[in-house]
Amino acid sequence: MIIVLKPEASFEHTERLLARITAAGLKALHMPGSERVVLGALGDERVLAELHLEGDPMVESVKPILAPYKLVSRELHPHDTIVRIGEVAIGGPVFQVIAGPCAVESRDQIRNTAMAVKAAGASALRAGAYKPRTSPYGFAGHGPSGLSMLREVGDELGLPIVTEVMDTADLELVAAHADALQIGARNMQNFALLRAVGKVRKPVVLKRGMSAKIEELLLAAEYLLAAGNEQVVLVERGIRTFETATRNTLDLNAIPYIKQRTHLPVLVDPSHGTGVRDLVIPMALAAAACGADGLLVEVHENPAVALSDGAQSLYPAQFEALMAALGPVVRAVGRQM
Amino acid sequence: MIIVLKPEASFEHTERLLARITAAGLKALHMPGSERVVLGALGDERVLAELHLEGDPMVESVKPILAPYKLVSRELHPHDTIVRIGEVAIGGPVFQVIAGPCAVESRDQIRNTAMAVKAAGASALRAGAYKPRTSPYGFAGHGPSGLSMLREVGDELGLPIVTEVMDTADLELVAAHADALQIGARNMQNFALLRAVGKVRKPVVLKRGMSAKIEELLLAAEYLLAAGNEQVVLVERGIRTFETATRNTLDLNAIPYIKQRTHLPVLVDPSHGTGVRDLVIPMALAAAACGADGLLVEVHENPAVALSDGAQSLYPAQFEALMAALGPVVRAVGRQM
Amino acid sequence: MIIVLKPEASFEHTERLLARITAAGLKALHMPGSERVVLGALGDERVLAELHLEGDPMVESVKPILAPYKLVSRELHPHDTIVRIGEVAIGGPVFQVIAGPCAVESRDQIRNTAMAVKAAGASALRAGAYKPRTSPYGFAGHGPSGLSMLREVGDELGLPIVTEVMDTADLELVAAHADALQIGARNMQNFALLRAVGKVRKPVVLKRGMSAKIEELLLAAEYLLAAGNEQVVLVERGIRTFETATRNTLDLNAIPYIKQRTHLPVLVDPSHGTGVRDLVIPMALAAAACGADGLLVEVHENPAVALSDGAQSLYPAQFEALMAALGPVVRAVGRQM
Amino acid sequence: MIIVLKPEASFEHTERLLARITAAGLKALHMPGSERVVLGALGDERVLAELHLEGDPMVESVKPILAPYKLVSRELHPHDTIVRIGEVAIGGPVFQVIAGPCAVESRDQIRNTAMAVKAAGASALRAGAYKPRTSPYGFAGHGPSGLSMLREVGDELGLPIVTEVMDTADLELVAAHADALQIGARNMQNFALLRAVGKVRKPVVLKRGMSAKIEELLLAAEYLLAAGNEQVVLVERGIRTFETATRNTLDLNAIPYIKQRTHLPVLVDPSHGTGVRDLVIPMALAAAACGADGLLVEVHENPAVALSDGAQSLYPAQFEALMAALGPVVRAVGRQM
Repeated sequence: MIIVLKPEASFEHTERLLARITAAGLKALHMPGSERVVLGALGDERVLAELHLEGDPMVESVKPILAPYKLVSRELHPHDTIVRIGEVAIGGPVFQVIAGPCAVESRDQIRNTAMAVKAAGASALRAGAYKPRTSPYGFAGHGPSGLSMLREVGDELGLPIVTEVMDTADLELVAAHADALQIGARNMQNFALLRAVGKVRKPVVLKRGMSAKIEELLLAAEYLLAAGNEQVVLVERGIRTFETATRNTLDLNAIPYIKQRTHLPVLVDPSHGTGVRDLVIPMALAAAACGADGLLVEVHENPAVALSDGAQSLYPAQFEALMAALGPVVRAVGRQM
Repeated sequence: MIIVLKPEASFEHTERLLARITAAGLKALHMPGSERVVLGALGDERVLAELHLEGDPMVESVKPILAPYKLVSRELHPHDTIVRIGEVAIGGPVFQVIAGPCAVESRDQIRNTAMAVKAAGASALRAGAYKPRTSPYGFAGHGPSGLSMLREVGDELGLPIVTEVMDTADLELVAAHADALQIGARNMQNFALLRAVGKVRKPVVLKRGMSAKIEELLLAAEYLLAAGNEQVVLVERGIRTFETATRNTLDLNAIPYIKQRTHLPVLVDPSHGTGVRDLVIPMALAAAACGADGLLVEVHENPAVALSDGAQSLYPAQFEALMAALGPVVRAVGRQM
Repeated sequence: MIIVLKPEASFEHTERLLARITAAGLKALHMPGSERVVLGALGDERVLAELHLEGDPMVESVKPILAPYKLVSRELHPHDTIVRIGEVAIGGPVFQVIAGPCAVESRDQIRNTAMAVKAAGASALRAGAYKPRTSPYGFAGHGPSGLSMLREVGDELGLPIVTEVMDTADLELVAAHADALQIGARNMQNFALLRAVGKVRKPVVLKRGMSAKIEELLLAAEYLLAAGNEQVVLVERGIRTFETATRNTLDLNAIPYIKQRTHLPVLVDPSHGTGVRDLVIPMALAAAACGADGLLVEVHENPAVALSDGAQSLYPAQFEALMAALGPVVRAVGRQM
Repeated sequence: MIIVLKPEASFEHTERLLARITAAGLKALHMPGSERVVLGALGDERVLAELHLEGDPMVESVKPILAPYKLVSRELHPHDTIVRIGEVAIGGPVFQVIAGPCAVESRDQIRNTAMAVKAAGASALRAGAYKPRTSPYGFAGHGPSGLSMLREVGDELGLPIVTEVMDTADLELVAAHADALQIGARNMQNFALLRAVGKVRKPVVLKRGMSAKIEELLLAAEYLLAAGNEQVVLVERGIRTFETATRNTLDLNAIPYIKQRTHLPVLVDPSHGTGVRDLVIPMALAAAACGADGLLVEVHENPAVALSDGAQSLYPAQFEALMAALGPVVRAVGRQM
């Protein structure tokens, strides 16, 4: 850690800061320059972070040297983690596609959609029984009965189920029905939920918050691993920017960046990442090309009457076209479908 | 609501959409232009939103006419709402200052800081017993014992207490200790929490999410009012932008914008809004000048050793200076201290 | 165009607005709703834009129906435009790669780099003789002598030259040396330059501004076409967001979005789009997968000593690896190398 | 400057980097930590920047210690600079208001508006003869004849004139008519223009780009000072964020941040900063409260028919109200009107 002092820092003040660094069991360095005094602190930066030197009135800035996450980092854990959702291995040689509607609307709707995505080659089913909605007047999901429908359809068709949990109070029930727990973008920094899900023995699908830096996504995953759950799949689903032509800006830079720094698998959600049905297929292909381990994609038997996210949901025939187009791209980058 | 169709929309398709609008009990309008067909739907837009026309493959865009919130709007409720936290009235003629440390660290720390802010003129005490922390390795608050210390100090000094609730599971306990429940920026769209807090009979201090549009903040408040809790205070605390010189970008535009559209009081948090101690005082003055109803400001007895947010916490002497500087500005815009 | 009036707009005021719309030769519609009066104006929206109704004190909002660009739009010009830079056709079946260093630093540097990129299969050479630099103390390019070196190397190796023009005063000289004129991100809304370049008979490579909406990029291109130059290639090069892990956020959503709406070819610059050498190859593959017509990529004979953009420049061996990896992806989406 | 090496950097590579630092005449430091080797370089960072160490393949990151600007910094020049536009002193005890329409539309319009703003107390007149317009179909100003009208009205009423220059080719003409040259937000990084304006002996009003970091604004000013022109006034005019309720997000944090770091005066433009007439007055008051040296504000004799920016222009009566409201706030923070 590098600590830059203000020009007006006195000699005595500097001495006191050096003493605090040493007292924390770290090696302190003193680098007096012509315009600024710079201090160094070598050792475990996470210990040093506890000193909170940025609050000192004579400290101009504090520059960490190491990334603030540890368990999710490749530096400690160089090999790829493979997460199993049911029998579907995410992070291995196979590019996996998890598909389904935004929400469970009815038994027929979820069953028909599930049959369509399975027929086209999806390996798991996604749908929400609890839906985060910006407006209190929107359809918020069927809750427990939605979970039951989802479980029945999953069992009937042999598709593992991925569904969102929004509150610690619902966790036990959702975990009893799902093969993987999704933590949605709006809850990526719901730390009580992260801690609770970290204690469950179910894989987690963790979506990046819409204004979360990549580092913050990795720290949210660190919460899960620190609590004991290492079965974590990350999802890039678009970030919020000034651009209004699309609902979000899909940040595909994040895919190779994350793959280079962590051992966890990462999926792309081109549905939320664009918000526009006509952009889903090209962005799904781009995701495969830049190294994602798979997709999370919204498909609805009839998006024109969907209760949520209709504008970004594929028709079954479009999903079939997507699966057909994916094959050559996936193979071009050395993966399998 | 205005519905713009794609150029390729057929006559039959248009007819079906008009029929759906009419069937929902709304008045449908047909406006064929030279390059696009445009449909109008007059009536309650919130009903129409349930039609989800944006999912239709022949719909190019849907443009709402009315704001999506209702209960928080001045159109239905023209007079200012005054929220009482203990005996402190927020939203009336008096500009109120709620101050205190980021977190309850120890009995001495909270008591000393509370005495300092009271002496300088603060009307309520803020501090967290449950702290959202980006890293799992940061200080996350003392929880229940922090709440007890806070309550004792509040009772001793006669200061109402504002503290954050982060999870529905903690709500009963927090509500038993606090005079007002804070919902933090990261939980502004924790809808399970909003619904639960909406059922409690305690005032709520709702902070804007770091990437929330003003409209989304108002819809989060709408959740609370729709659930029955009308004692809601909004807080602008800075948004996330490309600018890295400051921790956040304080969006003061939001203050007059919100005051013109809603009846709820609004505070400014210049501590999180800047993240830099030296910017807190000028931005607090700016907040008063543009019509905020008060401040939420971080003060610590010794920020140099604070366990969190030290860099943005004022020293007690600085808080005194802030209170002295505020008076003339508050009076210049016709309010009182 | 849809005009929403404020609730307090009087009948007389509404009449006057309708009269203004009619007087402009457009068809006016009057849609009185229960909570707002909405006006419609059918006809050429670009004419209507001249009425500036948004300045009227009783107008709440103005919602355009049509895109504000015309000449760049596929609606008027459905077939793909192919732009020829020298003999290189951009926008046709072949995926084209334009490569070279950020700046011309010396005759040896540009010649060695050009030989390397040509050997690996690049179809054109890019390099700057005039460099926009954030700091006045940075290397700003060799100007005229840089142009001469570039021209000589291009002629020797048979590579067309793409180079940036930053000021109308340099336009004649740059145009005399280059096969295509680049307008950089910082000048995308330098309207004097756009107008001047629009009058030159050279192809233009127009880069998206770092905070330009896609619509604004298309309007900048519209300036060029409106001035008479239809040989325009668009470039997505990353936008500025809150994410600091990468220099910019490459917005690949823009590629299919632009291809669906305009007839102009579009390239991707993964060097500026990421700012990180290790991310260039995966993002170049993603660009090919989502439908870009080619790449603009920075390569330097020795990036470790480059005078600018070294951190994002590929080594010649990496560029060779990129070209090898591109082939299968380009063919997977039905294009050729 | 701090240089963090990648974990795989060899001893020999480290030695070579240290030698490069020393060869540049700087003091090199070697700080081997347990997980990373960190190098320090003490001395003039601007010299070191010329080494471009960030391009080295073994360099993980480069962290500057000093700000990259020098001439605009308070560290070298602690006293406030006062810029004189005509006889109006900006940056002294008097809070100055420069007002006028977006564009010169006609002799009557500019004269009537100028009379109104003078009567209400404005100290200078602003208006554009050359207007940057996003669309090529918008009104782009009257050019030379607009300059003449502006000059005549300024002379008649004794108001100094501030007007924009957009291209080096127009600089001589604009400088011959104006008392101060405005560089607009879209040209803040038009470096050819900055260099040319730096050589002129006229005060410059430099607006922050809509996605410019504060540091970049200060570096743009550094261009002007480095070229010899020290009469520079900075303007905060709102930045581009995800928020769409307002046209821009006025970043008032920038005001105290800039005042603490530079000696140059800074104005606020609440018209562009909000884009909404009803928000201009409160944000103007906020600007005064947080330490701005004055305002740049749009006023039009009849905004309902303005050819540009009507929605954000004040009516003359509103401008009068603004001036009346400003007095008490300006005095509350110890300035004069």
